[in-house]
Amino acid sequence: MIDDVIARWHRYMAGELPGGLDELLADDVVFYSPVVYTPQRGKEITTGYLEAATKSLAGGDPGGVFTYVKEVLAGDTAVLEFETSVAGKYVNGVDIIRCDDAGRIVEFRVMMRPLQAIQVVHEEMGRRLAAGVQEVSRSATE
Amino acid sequence: MIDDVIARWHRYMAGELPGGLDELLADDVVFYSPVVYTPQRGKEITTGYLEAATKSLAGGDPGGVFTYVKEVLAGDTAVLEFETSVAGKYVNGVDIIRCDDAGRIVEFRVMMRPLQAIQVVHEEMGRRLAAGVQEVSRSATE
Repeated sequence: MIDDVIARWHRYMAGELPGGLDELLADDVVFYSPVVYTPQRGKEITTGYLEAATKSLAGGDPGGVFTYVKEVLAGDTAVLEFETSVAGKYVNGVDIIRCDDAGRIVEFRVMMRPLQAIQVVHEEMGRRLAAGVQEVSRSATE
Repeated sequence: MIDDVIARWHRYMAGELPGGLDELLADDVVFYSPVVYTPQRGKEITTGYLEAATKSLAGGDPGGVFTYVKEVLAGDTAVLEFETSVAGKYVNGVDIIRCDDAGRIVEFRVMMRPLQAIQVVHEEMGRRLAAGVQEVSRSATE
């Protein structure tokens, strides 16, 4: 089952999955941030984090393209190791993805190295999450 | 082969592996620190880092005992997820271990979350590595 989930995850990352994250994530999915201790619960908040993270990490830094360099799949869990570049800094990380029997993602955990990478991604994601909130407020008042 | 390596790794962590890291690590093993960008090459420096890390992470913080909570093994690679507590802070991390055909570890990569955990482990390991250097200098001059 995890093989199928990861195949769909790659289609999502390529912008080719009909239904997108709404199809992939379980309603009670939990997101574990590389920065913040507190688990983020539920499909809506997890979608927000994953969209911000995808844009931050794959966001067209001229220094490097987001690439999965290794995959380790067993049981209900996949570990996908990635490399990218954000604001000129090398970023190496893992997505640890666990799925349920229905093929929905129930847990999404991200870790990164080195320390400088986490700091730069933290800043970049903060800007994007704040901008997302502003866009939401703007469209709500327009 | 990776199953056997991980079984021996757990025996090492329990202090029960004759030969210790010298048996487990390949001569040209590379250690990728959760903090530092530059890969650390060779058995001697990797042994130093792993011994300091083991003491820092498993070092008897009353708040929590070092525990592996999940293992994902496939091909030549194992991902071991751990939880512990250092200086009262929750630490969640992974050891990503790759072995060669002879059953020696050729790559050891560590990542941790959240950000606060990396900062506290960084400080703790800095103290231990500095103390180690002092011990070496002291025994060299005695």
